[in-house]
Amino acid sequence: MEVEVKFKVEDFEEIKKKLAEVGKFVIEKVEEDLYFNSPWRDFWRSDEALRIRKDVEGVTLTYKGRKVDAETKTREEIKLKVNSFDKCRKILEKLGFKPVRWVKKRRRIYRVNEAVVCLDEVEGLGKFVEVEIESEDVKEAKKRVFEVARNLGLKGESIRESYLEMLEKQEN
Amino acid sequence: MEVEVKFKVEDFEEIKKKLAEVGKFVIEKVEEDLYFNSPWRDFWRSDEALRIRKDVEGVTLTYKGRKVDAETKTREEIKLKVNSFDKCRKILEKLGFKPVRWVKKRRRIYRVNEAVVCLDEVEGLGKFVEVEIESEDVKEAKKRVFEVARNLGLKGESIRESYLEMLEKQEN
Repeated sequence: MEVEVKFKVEDFEEIKKKLAEVGKFVIEKVEEDLYFNSPWRDFWRSDEALRIRKDVEGVTLTYKGRKVDAETKTREEIKLKVNSFDKCRKILEKLGFKPVRWVKKRRRIYRVNEAVVCLDEVEGLGKFVEVEIESEDVKEAKKRVFEVARNLGLKGESIRESYLEMLEKQEN
Repeated sequence: MEVEVKFKVEDFEEIKKKLAEVGKFVIEKVEEDLYFNSPWRDFWRSDEALRIRKDVEGVTLTYKGRKVDAETKTREEIKLKVNSFDKCRKILEKLGFKPVRWVKKRRRIYRVNEAVVCLDEVEGLGKFVEVEIESEDVKEAKKRVFEVARNLGLKGESIRESYLEMLEKQEN
């Protein structure tokens, strides 16, 4: 399970200073995600997601299950490395899946103990910080992601919506 | 497009001798293919196929379109290398695809000019020889695969059915 909290921020200055103390910088990259919908089950209603991501590390096909927690973006996530964006897209389209939207962002990734912290600048949405732990023990992981978020000075309510959902809502 | 003809044979003795003269041995391997059906369009009726193959060279997700020629097994084929059989299967199942059948075979692959020749020993079906050319020029490729087949001494009618279809029919 991917246990994740997300916060909107004005800028990354304060959090970058804190991460310099407690975290370890991993990589900065541009992630370009193409999301698909299913021909026989509306992912918007079922709260699932299917996307192909390309970035400097390669191409990944990811399935995300529905969110299972009221305060976090906790959900099952299955990631598959593939060798071609175009072929993966073509197979999905042949199977009936329709591309619905691109989500593009610049992401700086840090590690804080077992947590992954992402500073995201999302095209059309602005700046966000995500704190994520992959774990089967959702309860414990949830406690830990909120701890890490608090220690980094992240305030306000955690956003449960995905970037895809935020972009869709913004448009409609 | 994958332009392919297939012939049932009693044994591989004669053809192996011919291949030693005109062909180049590439590899011998065991291929284990798991085929899936779609939740919203019966692949048996639409003449499509979706499978995950694992062999010594890795794992491949393959989509095959409907056959487009009366005498050969010519069809569009999109192959995607992936990094995990289990994750690929899990994503397909989450998306609603159902595993229908394993097809397992020992395959000896040769190259004869631009054609690929496979000596297949298929679990539950017996021995077959496939001659295949990948090309956009279906007409020319079809001429060439029949030429290669004739030169290798393959006689009788070419089988248009896939191993999956033959296994399904045999059972029912």
